[in-house]
Amino acid sequence: MPTEFELIQQHFTHATPRTLLGVGDDAALITPSPGQVLAVATDMLVGGRHFFMDVDPESVGHKALAVNLSDMAAMGAMPRWATLGIALPKADARWVAAMSAGFMKLARRHGVDLIGGDTTRGPLNLCVQIIGEVPARQALRRDGAKPGDDVWVSGALGDAALAVAARNQRIKLKPADRKRAQQKLDWPLPRIALGMALRGVARSAIDISDGLVADLGHICERSGVAAVVAFECLPVSAVMRRYREAPVAQAALLGGGDDYELCFTAAPAKRAAVERTAARTRTRVTRIGRVIRAPEGACKVVVVDGDGLPVKATQQGFDHFR
Amino acid sequence: MPTEFELIQQHFTHATPRTLLGVGDDAALITPSPGQVLAVATDMLVGGRHFFMDVDPESVGHKALAVNLSDMAAMGAMPRWATLGIALPKADARWVAAMSAGFMKLARRHGVDLIGGDTTRGPLNLCVQIIGEVPARQALRRDGAKPGDDVWVSGALGDAALAVAARNQRIKLKPADRKRAQQKLDWPLPRIALGMALRGVARSAIDISDGLVADLGHICERSGVAAVVAFECLPVSAVMRRYREAPVAQAALLGGGDDYELCFTAAPAKRAAVERTAARTRTRVTRIGRVIRAPEGACKVVVVDGDGLPVKATQQGFDHFR
Repeated sequence: MPTEFELIQQHFTHATPRTLLGVGDDAALITPSPGQVLAVATDMLVGGRHFFMDVDPESVGHKALAVNLSDMAAMGAMPRWATLGIALPKADARWVAAMSAGFMKLARRHGVDLIGGDTTRGPLNLCVQIIGEVPARQALRRDGAKPGDDVWVSGALGDAALAVAARNQRIKLKPADRKRAQQKLDWPLPRIALGMALRGVARSAIDISDGLVADLGHICERSGVAAVVAFECLPVSAVMRRYREAPVAQAALLGGGDDYELCFTAAPAKRAAVERTAARTRTRVTRIGRVIRAPEGACKVVVVDGDGLPVKATQQGFDHFR
Repeated sequence: MPTEFELIQQHFTHATPRTLLGVGDDAALITPSPGQVLAVATDMLVGGRHFFMDVDPESVGHKALAVNLSDMAAMGAMPRWATLGIALPKADARWVAAMSAGFMKLARRHGVDLIGGDTTRGPLNLCVQIIGEVPARQALRRDGAKPGDDVWVSGALGDAALAVAARNQRIKLKPADRKRAQQKLDWPLPRIALGMALRGVARSAIDISDGLVADLGHICERSGVAAVVAFECLPVSAVMRRYREAPVAQAALLGGGDDYELCFTAAPAKRAAVERTAARTRTRVTRIGRVIRAPEGACKVVVVDGDGLPVKATQQGFDHFR
C-alpha cells in the first residue's frame, strides 16, 4: 500500500517526452542539443514570504515555475527541463494536487519536462531549478550594455507590487482594480518568446524581479555603465494609470518587483528590429531610456521627470534580509 | 554599501573554471561535453529534519552537497555543476561562512563548480541541484538488474542510523563509538570514483539513503525482480560489530538510511571485475546476496539469517510523512 508520501510523489510523475530517463531513478538523464550551451538557474519560494499562505495553490505552482522560466527568458534561452524540491508542513493531497496542476500546466505550455524532485516534510518551501538551451554566442547577458544603447522594457510595470501594497493596506484600490493587480502578482507570464526572439537583437537583458531600478542597476554594474530612465515613458496598465500619482504606486513602478517583465538594452540601429520582434511575439515593448557612460565610475540608474529633474527612486530592490 | 544579503551571497560566489558563465547573471551557462548525456538530481535538506540544528554548520554544507553527489555516484556519472537554494531564518554570517566552507571543500575535491543559487529568508532549508555527465549507454540505472545477478554493497552499513538512535536515546554507545558513528552521519563520503568505475561492470545501482532494504527494493521494483540478502554477509564497521545484537542496531543496518553507500547488482561473471574496480578505487565492496525472479510478481527483498530463515526487516525506508 502506498504511503501518503508516495501518493504525493505521484503528482510529480508525468510523461517526459523530451527526456532520456525521467523521474524514478537516482538522477534523470537528459540529452543536450548539439551546438547549444545550457542555461541553468534556480529560485526558491518560501511560503508566507514569496506568496501569501492563503493564495490559490494552483497559482503557487504556476509562480514557482514562472519565476524560473523568467530567468530563461532573460537569457534568451529555450526552457527544457525542470526539477522541483518541496517541503510541506503536512501531506495535504488536495493542496499538492492543485499546486502540481498549476506547475504542470505552465510546464506543458512551454514544452518543459519535469524530470526530478524531492518531497519532504518541513515549513512550506518550493525550490525549482530550470535548464534551458541557447546558442553560446546569442545568450542575453547582463554585461553587454554599451553607452548609447536604448533601454527597453516589456509589458507594464508595478501592478504586482500594487497588489501587495493593497493587501498590506498601504493603498486602497477599487475591487476590480485590485483583482486585476492580484492576477499579475499570482499569475506572472514569463516572456519566453520575446527573450528568444531578442537573440542577436538585444545587447543585454535581465528580468524584473526586484524592481526596475534595482534590476536595470544590475545591468549597469555588470556592464560598467549607467542609465537614464524617463519616468513618464514607463509603461503602465490601465489599473496603474488610475493610481499613478500616489507615492506607493510610484514606488511600485520603480522598485516594486515581482513584475517578471524583461528589461533589455539594444543599439539605436536596432529599433526597427526590436519593434518587429515585439510584433512577432505579440508583446508590448516600450523604450524608456538610454545607457550612458558611468559618471565618475558610478554605475547607477537615474530616473528623471518630464523636466529632466531626478525622481527620488527606490534604488534598492527587495532585500530579503532587511 | 552592500546589504547583509549581498554579503551572504558573496560566500557563494567562487571561481567556476569549468563553466562558461558562472554566478551573477539570470542564469549560468554551461557547455556539456560531446558524447555525454547529463544526469540531473536534486535533494532538499530541512533544518531539524535532515540535520540537527546544533550540528557543525560546515558539516551541513558538506552533507547538502554529499547527498547529491551520491546520486551522481549511483548513476555512474561524473559530477560537474551544482546550484544551491538556501532559506535562512536570519543573516548569520558566521553560520553561512562555515556552511559554505563545507560545501565548497567537497565541491573542489570533486571538481564541481557552484554555478548559481538563491538566498532568501525563511525556515532553514538547503536545496541543491547537481548536474553530472555520463556516456548514455553506461549510466547505472535502477532498472537493469537481472535474475542471477549478485547484489553488492560498498563500505559498511548502519553507522549513521546508529548515531541518530544514540541521540534519540534508543541505544547507548560508548563515547568513542558514538563519535565515530556521528562522523558517518555528518560527513558522508559519496562513492563517486566507485560509481564511475562500475560503468560497464554493474547492471544496476542505487545509493542507500533510505536504508538497504528499501533502496534495494527500488531496484527490484524498477527491474521487475526480487532479491535475497544474507544478513550475516552485511558489511559492518568495528563500531556496529559491537552493538550488532541489539534490535536497534539491526534495524539501523537494514533500514536505517543515511548510509550513502552504493548498492549494485552485477552478473556473476563480473565478480573479478567488481573486485578489481573496488581495489582500483580503494573501496570496500561486499557481496551480500542475489537477484531472483520475482515470486508471484512480488518485487521484494527478503533478508535471511545463517539458517536461511527470514529476518524481520524494516521493508519501508524513512518516510517523511509518517
